[in-house]
Amino acid sequence: MPGNSFGKSFRFTTWGESHGFAIGCVIDGVPPRLPLSEANIQYYLDRRRPGQSRHTSQRREPDKIRIVSGVFEGQTTGTPLALVIENVDQRSRDYGNIAEQFRPAHADFTYWRKYGIRDYRGGGRASARETAMRVAAGAVARKVLGERIRIRGALIEMGGEAIHRDRWDWDEIERNPFWCPDAKMATVWEGTLNALRKDGNSTGAVIEVVAEGVPAGLGEPVYDKLDADLAKAMMSINAVKGVEIGKGFAAAVQNGVDSADEIRAGQGAHAPKFLSNNAGGVLGGISSGQDVVVRFAVKPTSSITIPRRSIDVSGNEIDILTKGRHDPCVGIRAVPVGEAMMACVLADHLLRNRAQTGQVP
Amino acid sequence: MPGNSFGKSFRFTTWGESHGFAIGCVIDGVPPRLPLSEANIQYYLDRRRPGQSRHTSQRREPDKIRIVSGVFEGQTTGTPLALVIENVDQRSRDYGNIAEQFRPAHADFTYWRKYGIRDYRGGGRASARETAMRVAAGAVARKVLGERIRIRGALIEMGGEAIHRDRWDWDEIERNPFWCPDAKMATVWEGTLNALRKDGNSTGAVIEVVAEGVPAGLGEPVYDKLDADLAKAMMSINAVKGVEIGKGFAAAVQNGVDSADEIRAGQGAHAPKFLSNNAGGVLGGISSGQDVVVRFAVKPTSSITIPRRSIDVSGNEIDILTKGRHDPCVGIRAVPVGEAMMACVLADHLLRNRAQTGQVP
Amino acid sequence: MPGNSFGKSFRFTTWGESHGFAIGCVIDGVPPRLPLSEANIQYYLDRRRPGQSRHTSQRREPDKIRIVSGVFEGQTTGTPLALVIENVDQRSRDYGNIAEQFRPAHADFTYWRKYGIRDYRGGGRASARETAMRVAAGAVARKVLGERIRIRGALIEMGGEAIHRDRWDWDEIERNPFWCPDAKMATVWEGTLNALRKDGNSTGAVIEVVAEGVPAGLGEPVYDKLDADLAKAMMSINAVKGVEIGKGFAAAVQNGVDSADEIRAGQGAHAPKFLSNNAGGVLGGISSGQDVVVRFAVKPTSSITIPRRSIDVSGNEIDILTKGRHDPCVGIRAVPVGEAMMACVLADHLLRNRAQTGQVP
Amino acid sequence: MPGNSFGKSFRFTTWGESHGFAIGCVIDGVPPRLPLSEANIQYYLDRRRPGQSRHTSQRREPDKIRIVSGVFEGQTTGTPLALVIENVDQRSRDYGNIAEQFRPAHADFTYWRKYGIRDYRGGGRASARETAMRVAAGAVARKVLGERIRIRGALIEMGGEAIHRDRWDWDEIERNPFWCPDAKMATVWEGTLNALRKDGNSTGAVIEVVAEGVPAGLGEPVYDKLDADLAKAMMSINAVKGVEIGKGFAAAVQNGVDSADEIRAGQGAHAPKFLSNNAGGVLGGISSGQDVVVRFAVKPTSSITIPRRSIDVSGNEIDILTKGRHDPCVGIRAVPVGEAMMACVLADHLLRNRAQTGQVP
Repeated sequence: MPGNSFGKSFRFTTWGESHGFAIGCVIDGVPPRLPLSEANIQYYLDRRRPGQSRHTSQRREPDKIRIVSGVFEGQTTGTPLALVIENVDQRSRDYGNIAEQFRPAHADFTYWRKYGIRDYRGGGRASARETAMRVAAGAVARKVLGERIRIRGALIEMGGEAIHRDRWDWDEIERNPFWCPDAKMATVWEGTLNALRKDGNSTGAVIEVVAEGVPAGLGEPVYDKLDADLAKAMMSINAVKGVEIGKGFAAAVQNGVDSADEIRAGQGAHAPKFLSNNAGGVLGGISSGQDVVVRFAVKPTSSITIPRRSIDVSGNEIDILTKGRHDPCVGIRAVPVGEAMMACVLADHLLRNRAQTGQVP
Repeated sequence: MPGNSFGKSFRFTTWGESHGFAIGCVIDGVPPRLPLSEANIQYYLDRRRPGQSRHTSQRREPDKIRIVSGVFEGQTTGTPLALVIENVDQRSRDYGNIAEQFRPAHADFTYWRKYGIRDYRGGGRASARETAMRVAAGAVARKVLGERIRIRGALIEMGGEAIHRDRWDWDEIERNPFWCPDAKMATVWEGTLNALRKDGNSTGAVIEVVAEGVPAGLGEPVYDKLDADLAKAMMSINAVKGVEIGKGFAAAVQNGVDSADEIRAGQGAHAPKFLSNNAGGVLGGISSGQDVVVRFAVKPTSSITIPRRSIDVSGNEIDILTKGRHDPCVGIRAVPVGEAMMACVLADHLLRNRAQTGQVP
Repeated sequence: MPGNSFGKSFRFTTWGESHGFAIGCVIDGVPPRLPLSEANIQYYLDRRRPGQSRHTSQRREPDKIRIVSGVFEGQTTGTPLALVIENVDQRSRDYGNIAEQFRPAHADFTYWRKYGIRDYRGGGRASARETAMRVAAGAVARKVLGERIRIRGALIEMGGEAIHRDRWDWDEIERNPFWCPDAKMATVWEGTLNALRKDGNSTGAVIEVVAEGVPAGLGEPVYDKLDADLAKAMMSINAVKGVEIGKGFAAAVQNGVDSADEIRAGQGAHAPKFLSNNAGGVLGGISSGQDVVVRFAVKPTSSITIPRRSIDVSGNEIDILTKGRHDPCVGIRAVPVGEAMMACVLADHLLRNRAQTGQVP
Repeated sequence: MPGNSFGKSFRFTTWGESHGFAIGCVIDGVPPRLPLSEANIQYYLDRRRPGQSRHTSQRREPDKIRIVSGVFEGQTTGTPLALVIENVDQRSRDYGNIAEQFRPAHADFTYWRKYGIRDYRGGGRASARETAMRVAAGAVARKVLGERIRIRGALIEMGGEAIHRDRWDWDEIERNPFWCPDAKMATVWEGTLNALRKDGNSTGAVIEVVAEGVPAGLGEPVYDKLDADLAKAMMSINAVKGVEIGKGFAAAVQNGVDSADEIRAGQGAHAPKFLSNNAGGVLGGISSGQDVVVRFAVKPTSSITIPRRSIDVSGNEIDILTKGRHDPCVGIRAVPVGEAMMACVLADHLLRNRAQTGQVP
């Protein structure tokens, strides 16, 4: 059972390498008669696109999405949706000795060990370019979820400097190039990144994604719990090293009295009022109707211009550094990717819940 | 696609409720001709068993495993392995008004919202009793992995007090009731737990699981990355709120120079020497040959004897507290469960890797 | 991805060997709040049970079903349904040299070649006993389908003698031990079977299963077409060698004019009137609202008392004959099994269709 | 769980409509380092291509395959293989009132009933054009199987006239436009088809596919039996109404003595000599090492120029006939498709068997 598909009822499969002809995605299980245009998807791709500020990699790709099947007269047909982005930036070039060398903290070594061959051009399949197709799938997932469910992500920590939650303003994330909800912190990060770029160094980050309006009942205990699938979804994004739901690791230092989200009467027993959200919207693997809150940590870009020690395919010891485009914090571009994965997990579980329980929310 | 199965090539499905007749597990895909006895599985169940110290719940269950199919003359046959534990502790009892009330931080409310019905006896399917079958499956997974791969877990933080890594001694985990590798911290925790029990309160914990001897090449990029599947595996355990691989959330505060695990010549290019293990043994979703290191956070037991506010199924506001058996830190019992899930993920990917690449390590 | 599960949204996994402790089944994805008792399932098992007439094998098993999880207070809970039948007929016995010999037309040789080990007692996992659990799963599937969908099977050919379709009477199938809808043919078959039993020989048969009341829209083109899944379902039953839908192989000799099922106005465009049913109720892999009609061919019992040539595990040439219980036509017992598989396929696609289209029929 | 994917370890997903921009296929799980070129695939597509004789549909498509990912420097990389064929014949045209009418025996009605929308242009997703991608996937599957396994198909019956098996000559299938292994029958069929074309009528056919050199041990009992998966594979091809393995429906009229394939000593117990092959190479769902033999029946083309009765989307009764390209026997083009599906099923089970048993044949 190979690993390039995600989801069960809303299921997408991606393909393509960084410097191949194109990258693409097939989404199967999309409900029929949803209005869908290329513009609907392009909107989210443009938000993710590298090159939109000097703080993200300077690759100049239009990332123009094409819907090549599954939509007829502006509506989904229920048959597979195929999406393609051509790689315009795939000109033949000098790859130097990258073919023979393993960059530390990259997938170079492990792809070579697993497959005995690797497409070394631009990172091949392991490139973050693959995440463009996650964002495209996420745009379709949002259509499945409908207007009622709203998914937004923010960068909440970079280089060890976290936002102040009392300054959180969702409108801010559109005003700075970091998806930062804290206007003051955005200014601080500006300086941090400039320093890192000058040094040829990089830093990690933490992203938070919040889904509002999620109906209670999504998630399939006990192994396909909603939070388990979210953990997998986020951890599968390039460079992610940790995932948490609700209170997350901080729950480990709580006591039982503080940890329990107390409940008061709301609009009937079906829609009570929770007094806190340590659970992050998931209890026993099933959504409770509260906001679903996920955070994930992204490690620093491993492509840095400071030499690091490594070996080549013959086992010789070398020093290696990455030339070319340089992204001091890949975490920034991970924000729309995290949103997309949240949308895909929720859409999948919405359909799965509908299969078993017949609830058509 | 329902959610009570885990894994693809090594695939197990569990069933059973806390206070039903029995709980069980079917494991499909087990390689044939592995020597396997009930004792091999019982060994791990005994380590998990509640009631083995006064620091874990006092349920007196022998948890006697039976292999009811798939083994013939002491060897696996390649057909499904069926495992069953009868619930001896299922005597009819007075469940009070638990049937009508939602305990905060429990799955009571969400099961009821999703299914419109719930087996309230002892938590039903949402009970931690389900994890016994994970441990059983993990024992079989270890047989698949063979002697070369060694998986061990430890409790590294409880109630906000973390072990000192320079005092880490694997032998210690067998000497205290907490799986604590730091003898001094074990003494501290003893006091912490006594205080919590006296107060009827509880606390969270962090577990670390380490797999040594894992061959390079396991993991299916890009969605079934080894670390993505581990994240799902751990997050699917009851009460887990966060998962991290290698450096985890601390990677977010690292810079690129420190983060990259440098490489030096080892025994040929296939088995180099890594100078650090920030990656936690996984690069690009594929094992590198280094130790695979996972940590997860467990929230405090929600069953506490201090009253919390909630509602009942009619929407009335109530105060509720949990009587009976009380476990001030469920994290302790999660250690063998985390080990088991690590074993299952690795066994699954070992077989999956063998399918595609033909590598029979 | 191992092979002991069937279905995707309504998914069952079976386990157990003919002469082990028990056989069992886990059904995941069952909608909650369906009334379900052991008697509901036992009814169908009793119809399949060997030993109910002298024309089927004389094994005296009560085949008493137990529901061990997933039902609470008489209703399904949405969690996995676990069903178990203990093997009372598993007394230790003399298996002679069956362990070393390969019976022709049995799975003895191939299990040994694939797994390098086999549970030879009573055919192990390859025994037709496994089909009891298909019947049990089918009983649950019928609950999912509801009263509106009616599934019935009949034996329509045995030993080369086919029923007359103009004498078809569904009531007859309950009146003879062959599920024969043609009273006259039932008498003929009585003689055929007596002769075969006397000779120690056996014969094949053809079964037809009809599902009435199936709503239009079930089936997932293009690979999980309703008829493709039915073909797999029936072919997976022991001893089945052919499957056809609607006109089946006879369609190969039709011309296009006769083959097309013409359509006339019915109750709106959604429920037209078809003038024939060559298609067997499936067009383009999707149910049309007509009766779904499937036929399958069962080969003669391979356990016969006339010696056949074979080899043993050392490669020596031997003559072999099967002693003990003898079933001159296993096709008879396949009728309720075919019904059950039809029910399971329809239930699965009902839930899958609900997931994607939201149609809750 | 949507239905546009086939296989588990060798898994392909197809997309595209008859008159959309393109059709395509993603194959995941392909072993790395297999030499693969577009020419390797094109060879099989050219054999299937419509328009190669006047006996198959006159669509003039070059069907030029492009490998757009998964191959690097002439070898598979282990990452998803993406294949695309652009639809050059997709010019805007007058579709008449096909959008409002349901052609009898087509998928028009059922797609509309299931999805509430349909791409009516050229049959949309239900078009036989989809089978081009099966052939492409099959070409890759043959690479996985290697030279040792040889898969060939033949048309053995058309319009009720069957070949004579004693005149079977595999070389003949390349010499006539029908894949007919019986030179004399090919001449007869020539006349049959000319008459049908003149009348605007069509006929059905039977195809036989034989795989030689299949190792023993492939197939996953009990639900993913090799023959069960073959039955599904063949039945999923457009217009197929019946599938049989080995003796097939004729097994129903055999007796047990004749049916059993007797065994004699061959090259050790692992490779015995079977004296007949009624089983079609599969025992208990597992390949025995004999030739795997499958037959399937194709119904007559439903697109005929003789008017048939039907209704339109408003429920009005109409007469309808299909203009344009006309294929009096779609069964002819199904031969390479049947071969391809055989290859895909075998490749899938080869990898699956390798996962569980470690046998790398």
